[in-house]
Amino acid sequence: MNKEFQLTLDDVGSNGNQNIETLFALANGFLGVRASLPIAEEGCNAGSFVNGFYETSDITYGENAYGYAKQHQTMVKLFDFRTIELKINDCDKFTLSSRQMNLDMGKGVLQEKYVYTTSLNQEVQIEIESFASHKNRSVYAQKWRIMPLNFSGTIGVNKQAVHIQPNKVREDDPRKKESSAALQIDEEKVQTKNSGQILYYRFDDYQSEKLVEIGEEISFVQCYEMSKTPLSSIKIDYEVMKEAQQTIFQDFWSISDIELEGNVQLQKGIRFNLFHLFSSAGRDGKTNFSAKGLTGEGYEGHYFWDTEMYLLPFFIFTQPEIAKSLLQYRRNILPKAKERASELGYKGALFTWRTINGEETSAYYPAGTAQLHINADIAYAFELYEKVTGDTKFLSSAKDVLYETARFWLDYGFYSKRGFELHEVTGPDEYTALVNNNYYTNQMAKNNLYYAVKLANQYQEYVEEAVDWKKAADAMFVGYDEEKKLTKQDDSFLEKEKWHFEQTPKEKYPLLLHYHPMKIYKYQVLKQADVLLAHMLFPRGVEQEKRDFDYYEPLTTHDSSLSKAIYGVVASRIGYEKKAYDFFKESAIMDLEDTHENANHGIHAANMGGCWLGLIYGFAGLRVEGEEIVFHNHLPKEFTSLKFRYLHKGNVQEVVLTQDEKTNGDFGSS
Amino acid sequence: MNKEFQLTLDDVGSNGNQNIETLFALANGFLGVRASLPIAEEGCNAGSFVNGFYETSDITYGENAYGYAKQHQTMVKLFDFRTIELKINDCDKFTLSSRQMNLDMGKGVLQEKYVYTTSLNQEVQIEIESFASHKNRSVYAQKWRIMPLNFSGTIGVNKQAVHIQPNKVREDDPRKKESSAALQIDEEKVQTKNSGQILYYRFDDYQSEKLVEIGEEISFVQCYEMSKTPLSSIKIDYEVMKEAQQTIFQDFWSISDIELEGNVQLQKGIRFNLFHLFSSAGRDGKTNFSAKGLTGEGYEGHYFWDTEMYLLPFFIFTQPEIAKSLLQYRRNILPKAKERASELGYKGALFTWRTINGEETSAYYPAGTAQLHINADIAYAFELYEKVTGDTKFLSSAKDVLYETARFWLDYGFYSKRGFELHEVTGPDEYTALVNNNYYTNQMAKNNLYYAVKLANQYQEYVEEAVDWKKAADAMFVGYDEEKKLTKQDDSFLEKEKWHFEQTPKEKYPLLLHYHPMKIYKYQVLKQADVLLAHMLFPRGVEQEKRDFDYYEPLTTHDSSLSKAIYGVVASRIGYEKKAYDFFKESAIMDLEDTHENANHGIHAANMGGCWLGLIYGFAGLRVEGEEIVFHNHLPKEFTSLKFRYLHKGNVQEVVLTQDEKTNGDFGSS
Repeated sequence: MNKEFQLTLDDVGSNGNQNIETLFALANGFLGVRASLPIAEEGCNAGSFVNGFYETSDITYGENAYGYAKQHQTMVKLFDFRTIELKINDCDKFTLSSRQMNLDMGKGVLQEKYVYTTSLNQEVQIEIESFASHKNRSVYAQKWRIMPLNFSGTIGVNKQAVHIQPNKVREDDPRKKESSAALQIDEEKVQTKNSGQILYYRFDDYQSEKLVEIGEEISFVQCYEMSKTPLSSIKIDYEVMKEAQQTIFQDFWSISDIELEGNVQLQKGIRFNLFHLFSSAGRDGKTNFSAKGLTGEGYEGHYFWDTEMYLLPFFIFTQPEIAKSLLQYRRNILPKAKERASELGYKGALFTWRTINGEETSAYYPAGTAQLHINADIAYAFELYEKVTGDTKFLSSAKDVLYETARFWLDYGFYSKRGFELHEVTGPDEYTALVNNNYYTNQMAKNNLYYAVKLANQYQEYVEEAVDWKKAADAMFVGYDEEKKLTKQDDSFLEKEKWHFEQTPKEKYPLLLHYHPMKIYKYQVLKQADVLLAHMLFPRGVEQEKRDFDYYEPLTTHDSSLSKAIYGVVASRIGYEKKAYDFFKESAIMDLEDTHENANHGIHAANMGGCWLGLIYGFAGLRVEGEEIVFHNHLPKEFTSLKFRYLHKGNVQEVVLTQDEKTNGDFGSS
Repeated sequence: MNKEFQLTLDDVGSNGNQNIETLFALANGFLGVRASLPIAEEGCNAGSFVNGFYETSDITYGENAYGYAKQHQTMVKLFDFRTIELKINDCDKFTLSSRQMNLDMGKGVLQEKYVYTTSLNQEVQIEIESFASHKNRSVYAQKWRIMPLNFSGTIGVNKQAVHIQPNKVREDDPRKKESSAALQIDEEKVQTKNSGQILYYRFDDYQSEKLVEIGEEISFVQCYEMSKTPLSSIKIDYEVMKEAQQTIFQDFWSISDIELEGNVQLQKGIRFNLFHLFSSAGRDGKTNFSAKGLTGEGYEGHYFWDTEMYLLPFFIFTQPEIAKSLLQYRRNILPKAKERASELGYKGALFTWRTINGEETSAYYPAGTAQLHINADIAYAFELYEKVTGDTKFLSSAKDVLYETARFWLDYGFYSKRGFELHEVTGPDEYTALVNNNYYTNQMAKNNLYYAVKLANQYQEYVEEAVDWKKAADAMFVGYDEEKKLTKQDDSFLEKEKWHFEQTPKEKYPLLLHYHPMKIYKYQVLKQADVLLAHMLFPRGVEQEKRDFDYYEPLTTHDSSLSKAIYGVVASRIGYEKKAYDFFKESAIMDLEDTHENANHGIHAANMGGCWLGLIYGFAGLRVEGEEIVFHNHLPKEFTSLKFRYLHKGNVQEVVLTQDEKTNGDFGSS
């Protein structure tokens, strides 16, 4: 693999320890390990995670009410596998002199080299090679080499997994919520206190004390194993495992790689994003893809709609097996979604806004439970999966998800003179809450209902119910301002005062940290794409989309990391090439350059998927039209070519866009 | 005083211990004592309170955000002054055989008689006379008589104030929130831990052990003194104090009594309500009137808009000195209101929704801080006070309240094509939240602005600002549905689905305990009068009011105790005599009959004021028109006459309504 697959410290914008821990983190969908220093410094945040391994605690409300989420679910920060205790003669204090990191994204292996210095100027070099195995997802493996550079002496080594003690209090920034849980640690397993989850483990500890001459080294291999089921007794062979890792990553890139010619940094950003998408996605049908993947504690390891609307397109088009397992997770939590709908007084199923175990854990319903669109987002992803993969077999096993969500919409909405309306919802834009007829929500619910009707007719079941679903979908109200010729984000949005952007200094962003929600909700101001996200999915024609873009984009703070990628896609399609380029660029390098200044809490997974959307839905103009996958060359002039592959009903397709071939027409590919 | 001023156990609907503790509680605006049993039984909730004596604790949110209220403020449950330790020979277990209570509301004195029986059938009678002194508000005084009825023996008595230890956890029902705080108790004072409040005390303890023959008795007097400032050393004379109490209550009734002929129970209900209004109102300008007065811990002893809109009319018209001190409280917390407006990003002052110390302590902003109307409610009360009392001197010292609230409205609202709009507010109806242009709020804000303009012109200050206030008031948008000829509660209310009352069984009320707020907000359903409350204050003509009444009343659950009284007033005015009678009746006996089944947490003070409104604003049709007080006889046929007095600019006026004199015309009285 060439240099473009190597990530080094030169490639990242911020060299803060926690930032590096996130960006160079290794994960395999089951476990994730932050790339912390071998000898801890202040301000480090070492640790590892297991997907879906969480602790619960009661949510305390200042004022409680019926139907509020009852328990926090918090992904547990597990062991620090990377800390080493070192002693040179009698000295155990070291200063970091140099650090080199090389993440070989092509092979899924991290190489590190450190030089540490004692107060007596003794220099010791540490080399670590490590990977989170994709062959055996229980395994995180390390190979260490420790060598004196300018002395001979006794080197003592103690390398053990260290349990991270809970030491963080809940933070006020709702995006962070770092926390770790007290674990009961037994000989072969750890157990959470409240949620009763069990994790089996087997760790290779290493201890030695040796006289080492210059030119000699201490080397050892460690395989850390963790599993939700008892571990097999088979001994891990590091080299065999590493070989398999490379093969798996080669296979991954052979389908999922994207070659964008014209900007080396952005090319690296793309691969960095795809690498993390592949690394953190749950593979077992019981776990999903948390907002920060397995790279950090932000958002407590919860799964959101991010999976369906930002991540799944990438997986559906290039790694359908992963897509299937992520959708299988939703099928598995359907019973919880039915309970939740019932608790709220509705029929069918309502998937919860943020969750690990399927129960609602959003403690602020206006920007949580009220985002009912998650139901339709999930339905949309099932439909896209079926259309692109042709995997009707899986759909036939999961079609209850579509029926139950359709039932919910039918019961939740009501008929008025204007049509079928959905009230008191929050759309994707979280700076506008509890509104009537959010455009995105209504369009998505309509699609949800139609898809359920299609399945019901196809499988000849619930046919009578399906008549009502179709009637509601046909009658679904969508708001439009005839005078302004604008799509209405919701019934009241265009009636509001516009946010006073000119009176808002830079340091007051993101608004959510500096203004009361009541104030934010009062104005025309968006956190993220809302109407335009709907347009990305359900095109309304270039002229309409332009008008809406021109209206809504300037009102958008992009305070959410889920925003720019979507505006970029639409900008491509409506011919706003400069904006498309700019938004794509920011999406491609968001974490690499730490533009949101919080990559220390973990990657922005949804944006990474958004980066793929920017390239494929945006620059390449991909649309699914019936049985066809259709493209349109929107490649910005900054790039000479774009080359990518995707799978359509099991067949690999390759698309190459160049400036020469740039025309105005669509071109199909199936 | 005649029998109608005596409240006995026969008069109350529920004989539960906690209910009796509330109904027979004694208070003097400074301190309040629940009428608990002398020998505690399970399920009792004894205790005393001092107005505005509170403890703070951090509010924990499941998900915190900028500008949320930071601290709970909780009125502290203080000493149990009523428990006695009794020993007859060696026996200290007693069974209550009989209980008589007689609250002489005419004199402000409670008489009680208990017979307790030992397992050996020894009967002992306990008589207690007690009052919360209105002459010296530091004093709660008791006189005890203990006599053996059927034996002679040694009677041991230990009568001491007992500190109530914190033993309650926060409850989920937002209306309760009982709690008590750990106190640091020194020799002469107690101190709260977090809020650092100090209360000085001097208690007469009593201990004795005597041989008592049948026909003899043990008697003693106890004066419990508490004060926020060091106590004077003057010894309290029980009889002198009791004499003064009777004079003060005579004076009170001479102005504030209302004689309603035709229904003895309702007559008693009225006096019961007026008695508690007089008892619990703060008198020192630094305290106010909590939602449950000084009779219970419900709503944590917080002050709400209840004072201004439900209680102050009674005080303004009959006890203007008390009215002034309640308004003085608002003037005193104005600096906190300015800080709050600033924190939320607005100019001027925003009074907090619920508070003791002036800081916001509502932990649920959609039904708390968002009820901005409290600003205008306060302004309205200041205006009414000035109009009725003519006390311009007080107003001139408090007019900043009006200017600062006007400044807030001007900054909060904005001009649109439709006029001056107020968005993202919650009106009085808490089953509809975060809406645009709540009719009540806009009307009240308009009035607030106009009154500020009037004062500014009168005092020739802020005259330029006042031009903008007037402009906004003139342009204030008020919503009206031209087709339905209905006043719109807010921009979207009439667009909503109607609540499915037919599918809501009785046990699902109050809705707030059985449905998620998101669900409740979605429907046309009211907790309490909203548009109709505005109509009570700003009449819109009988025809319009009838249409609005016919539309909104059937959508109202009256889950709030603040609802029925208001509908009753409007029903009177629009000639719905039967409804006026029914609503008034429920208002008159709400606590006496415990119709809301929670009088155990304390009286419903606002409803007690609402009872006065039902009589005077409703049956007697009182309106203030310029310099005149105007009446209209709406006396329901169930009553033969209604007689009451009020003060207009210092002069006592008497009004008598009878069925004979019932005409359609207004009659003045000034």
